[in-house]
Amino acid sequence: MKWLRTTFISLTVLLISLPLSADQWVEKQSFTIDSYTTHGGETIKDIKVGWEAYGKLNEAKDNVILITHFFSGNSHAAGKYSEDDPQAGYWDAIIGSGKAIDTDKYYVISVDSLVNAYPNLPNVITTGPASINPDTGKPYGLDFPVVTIRDFVNVQKALLEDLGINKLHAVIGASMGSLQAIEWAAAYPDWVERMVSVIGAGSLDAWTIMGLEQWAQAIKLDPNWNGGNYYDGDAPLEGVTLAQAMITQGAMHPEYINQAVPKQETLPAKGLESVTTELPAVEWLFGASRARAPLADANHILYLVRANQLFVAGHQNTLKDGLKNISAKTLFLPSSNDLLLMPYMAENTAEQLREMGKEVQYEEISGPWGHLNGLFSIQQKAGLLSEFLTKE
Amino acid sequence: MKWLRTTFISLTVLLISLPLSADQWVEKQSFTIDSYTTHGGETIKDIKVGWEAYGKLNEAKDNVILITHFFSGNSHAAGKYSEDDPQAGYWDAIIGSGKAIDTDKYYVISVDSLVNAYPNLPNVITTGPASINPDTGKPYGLDFPVVTIRDFVNVQKALLEDLGINKLHAVIGASMGSLQAIEWAAAYPDWVERMVSVIGAGSLDAWTIMGLEQWAQAIKLDPNWNGGNYYDGDAPLEGVTLAQAMITQGAMHPEYINQAVPKQETLPAKGLESVTTELPAVEWLFGASRARAPLADANHILYLVRANQLFVAGHQNTLKDGLKNISAKTLFLPSSNDLLLMPYMAENTAEQLREMGKEVQYEEISGPWGHLNGLFSIQQKAGLLSEFLTKE
Repeated sequence: MKWLRTTFISLTVLLISLPLSADQWVEKQSFTIDSYTTHGGETIKDIKVGWEAYGKLNEAKDNVILITHFFSGNSHAAGKYSEDDPQAGYWDAIIGSGKAIDTDKYYVISVDSLVNAYPNLPNVITTGPASINPDTGKPYGLDFPVVTIRDFVNVQKALLEDLGINKLHAVIGASMGSLQAIEWAAAYPDWVERMVSVIGAGSLDAWTIMGLEQWAQAIKLDPNWNGGNYYDGDAPLEGVTLAQAMITQGAMHPEYINQAVPKQETLPAKGLESVTTELPAVEWLFGASRARAPLADANHILYLVRANQLFVAGHQNTLKDGLKNISAKTLFLPSSNDLLLMPYMAENTAEQLREMGKEVQYEEISGPWGHLNGLFSIQQKAGLLSEFLTKE
Repeated sequence: MKWLRTTFISLTVLLISLPLSADQWVEKQSFTIDSYTTHGGETIKDIKVGWEAYGKLNEAKDNVILITHFFSGNSHAAGKYSEDDPQAGYWDAIIGSGKAIDTDKYYVISVDSLVNAYPNLPNVITTGPASINPDTGKPYGLDFPVVTIRDFVNVQKALLEDLGINKLHAVIGASMGSLQAIEWAAAYPDWVERMVSVIGAGSLDAWTIMGLEQWAQAIKLDPNWNGGNYYDGDAPLEGVTLAQAMITQGAMHPEYINQAVPKQETLPAKGLESVTTELPAVEWLFGASRARAPLADANHILYLVRANQLFVAGHQNTLKDGLKNISAKTLFLPSSNDLLLMPYMAENTAEQLREMGKEVQYEEISGPWGHLNGLFSIQQKAGLLSEFLTKE
């Protein structure tokens, strides 16, 4: 494997001079904090999170762009782990040599969040209720303290400080990643020069808090969830399946789904047999969700839901108080047909910043994907992003 | 009570000459079919459904307007049952003496659907999986045959025929009621002179079929559901609570919810305690849903979901084939910000009818309610409705 790694590095060097489509090899690294105190005042020992980086940190350590990830995602934002890796990181279209977030210029870094939804994915390193509590030798379950978006940010900050970094050329995130990006700008204004919120918001409103709760309730309904104590038995995979199906559909839009999914024949015989048979459209959504469920951890999803539900940028008394501290140039890129974090939320945050006299740009991403335009249609804004990143 | 009833009737006669806001007293009646064969070819004995009527059937029996109800509704479309009834029927704003659907001119009739979602409401009479199977003396459970929107229509037709009616001046329905209205026009074109589809569609697309399935899966996850056999034990109220919460939120819009629900303080202490504590916005939605759950029947909701999932107007091979038969004048009134049955669905159906050279009107209802604009903002279209009903 040593040889292979060397080959990959040579390839990387070689490919850096190639155009946009060039593959980039990346590896997951691990970062440990011996004892971490949450924003809520609880202590967690032995935090471990994974991280990835693309590009090269310059000597002044001032060319850093932090990418914060979405609810179902992780720090794999760009590149491939190996030659037979079927898919590159989720924003590979805009992160890489010569791309909008140009790894020839910037050191791009991303960190697996605490309580990551998919701790069972081979390339995710995270700490959460499924982790072993060093005090008991058993998984935390619901003894794990509630964590917030600020905690995700603080763990990232600890890693950056460990690398000798104390300034971000930019922080950029989609969806839950956008919450972290705004939180960075509000909590640590001296660090953040530019903030890009993609399909995000400065705070979650009642509508969105309720919607998130539906995902949580799906998990809690599964008898295998058992109050969060399932690590010795069967995991609540049916609850996770429903939650994931809700997340997937909620993040999409009929414009995409209705052309992707087989059109239903009138009165399919199977549908008339029993209310328990699965219709084709249902198989499409739930089949994929069921297959992916074992990679998730049910409690982790509950903790992520709660972190999102509690979000108000800056964690002050009001959103306005939180936004006041922001000194970064900001760019908001919501998706026009987003049904999960609707564009009015980003618009409202941008408007509040503008009223405070801060530097704000706002443009909507279009496309058939709904919320997921923030991932799959992002290249549409490559020019704008690249320009924003060079703005002085 | 005899005296009271007489008083109500006198009051009704008196009030008919009063303006729009006058109360109208109504009563639920019951209709029985000894043996009914479903569109899918199964037999159900002893069908009982409730019905209500407002206004007077003329001698020619040609002044009939049928109102078909929505998923969570029943035949209580207008009026009150008694003086201390806190709320009138759902479309009382447009049904009554001198109103858009004028009970001085029309005999307005409405029927509780088969497998009605709320069989435990005192004023609902329905037949479904919670009913006693006369062959076994026990509730049907999942032995009840799958029924379709066509079956709802056929039961209504049997009642109308029993009353000597063979023509509808109009059929008007909201949401699932709109599916029935379109089905009426497609299946029995000789009956239907005018069809009004409010917040509806000619068929459900993959997007909507998947969304409905999420409600069903919530119920099936509840261990008390027990494959539909829960009539001897505890009902799956937690599953019904989640399903209803999904239905309620899905039928609304952030524009309404975000002004109705208490704004969340930043980091409410309760929210940090545990992922199992309920946030204020969640209490608002789930508290109301939990309180209403015992009135619903879980299996009935599953059967309603399936009836909707199977819907294509006319139940032919394609929607186009089904729409071909329609000879009624049609009026489509979707809600602009509907997130449940999005307006593109009604638009698509209207467009197909227009291409076939049929008479089609299309206007969108506005308001803060999303899907529920079809109920709560309907008065906006009172003038249009009244005009449409006199169209020759």
